[in-house]
Amino acid sequence: MAGTDESKRGALGAGPAVILVDPQLGENIGTAARAMLNCGLGELRLVRPRDGWPNEKARAAASGADSVVEGARLFDSTEAAVGDLAHVYATTVRPREMVKPVLTPRAAAARLRAHAAAGEACGVLFGPERAGLTNDDIALADAIVTVPLNPGFASLNLAQAVLLVAYEWFQAGDATPPERTDTGGAAPATQAEIDRLFRHLDAELEAGGFYRVEEKKPSMRRTLRTILQHAALTDQEVRTLHGVFTALSGRRLGGAPKTRGGEGA
Amino acid sequence: MAGTDESKRGALGAGPAVILVDPQLGENIGTAARAMLNCGLGELRLVRPRDGWPNEKARAAASGADSVVEGARLFDSTEAAVGDLAHVYATTVRPREMVKPVLTPRAAAARLRAHAAAGEACGVLFGPERAGLTNDDIALADAIVTVPLNPGFASLNLAQAVLLVAYEWFQAGDATPPERTDTGGAAPATQAEIDRLFRHLDAELEAGGFYRVEEKKPSMRRTLRTILQHAALTDQEVRTLHGVFTALSGRRLGGAPKTRGGEGA
Repeated sequence: MAGTDESKRGALGAGPAVILVDPQLGENIGTAARAMLNCGLGELRLVRPRDGWPNEKARAAASGADSVVEGARLFDSTEAAVGDLAHVYATTVRPREMVKPVLTPRAAAARLRAHAAAGEACGVLFGPERAGLTNDDIALADAIVTVPLNPGFASLNLAQAVLLVAYEWFQAGDATPPERTDTGGAAPATQAEIDRLFRHLDAELEAGGFYRVEEKKPSMRRTLRTILQHAALTDQEVRTLHGVFTALSGRRLGGAPKTRGGEGA
Repeated sequence: MAGTDESKRGALGAGPAVILVDPQLGENIGTAARAMLNCGLGELRLVRPRDGWPNEKARAAASGADSVVEGARLFDSTEAAVGDLAHVYATTVRPREMVKPVLTPRAAAARLRAHAAAGEACGVLFGPERAGLTNDDIALADAIVTVPLNPGFASLNLAQAVLLVAYEWFQAGDATPPERTDTGGAAPATQAEIDRLFRHLDAELEAGGFYRVEEKKPSMRRTLRTILQHAALTDQEVRTLHGVFTALSGRRLGGAPKTRGGEGA
């Protein structure tokens, strides 16, 4: 499967249980299971799934997250489903006029990580597709989790809601740098390499009569040097461009393009 | 629709275009459109959708995000689809060995917000369901966006990928506090109200012979005072508990439960 390293499968941490209360469509259960495993969560609990369990549509929609679907546990009530947990969070779309902390998924993820670090079992409740959780279910929770969304269109698909909570859980424990540069194995060019490339270009342009107005020459050269600078070139790219400049100047002179320097392409 | 305030519909900002290249299933296009509108994005572009356009399955899956589906624009090539944009980001699951910055969705969202603030049009490319974007498409992008996910199961559904990028876009411009307490209109109890409630409980317990071991009394009282403190009660809850304590002590004495104080329930 694209993007999946089979050797790393199964290395799930002690994340929160995902508890689906009165889920209706098997497809949504399966898609939620896939989203859970995408984000390193493995424990699925189902309270009264409408279409029974096991459910073939859930398995199909899980797209390979079989371990989550097969490991799902069934419960007759929300109370039973959360009975062994020390901390329970309830997801809602609408405000419920209940006296509870209301957290963003990001803030909830930070708490869930703290619970996990302390070895305290926790879980997140999700209500059925249309109605959401009942107030009786929400009363069982330490806090409410509400995803900040477009107030003009805040109705979130069940599996999407599971994904966002699970995504924040994963991000809260992930060390991926926000930005890195993938150079495909090449090293960033040094300033000396950039300078040599610029002098090559400059010499070819001078020879070709590019700098027609002497007074504009300094600013033109600064512009070209700046372009080479902010291109953030690698050493391989510098070698490729040496070949390009040589080839272009060769064509301009009417001769056969020189190939020197093209080996880095 | 649950959680949707119709009066706030259509207040979309100048967010990035979502560009689906060679999308296969209409359902995925529709679910992606719904996720976009959830996160305040309205501009959908489609490059060669496999099953043609318009697509009834896309409309059904959009679950009300009709404006996004109906406004979608068709293109014959990725180059044409990004032609008017100043900044292009390409989503990938796998590393591609190309010389590009690789961003998390959160870091990409910060950049997209900066582009939007500067009035610079931008867009995010998503590849087809199985194969993802081609390297030729990725070459058109300023940077790559890769969602940090469970390396053992990183294959993300197309609509889920769109959701995560759109979600981070929305969060980057949203001012929802990470945590607030919804008190349903009630005010937090003052310390004096908590103290009065504690003295009420303490008196009832003293009368009922709860403090049997005199030496343990100070620590028992501290425990009870702490419970009342960390319950973070509202003024209404304090009134309810006064009624509860009175009713419990009435039952203990064999009389009819008193109802005084129960009006706050």
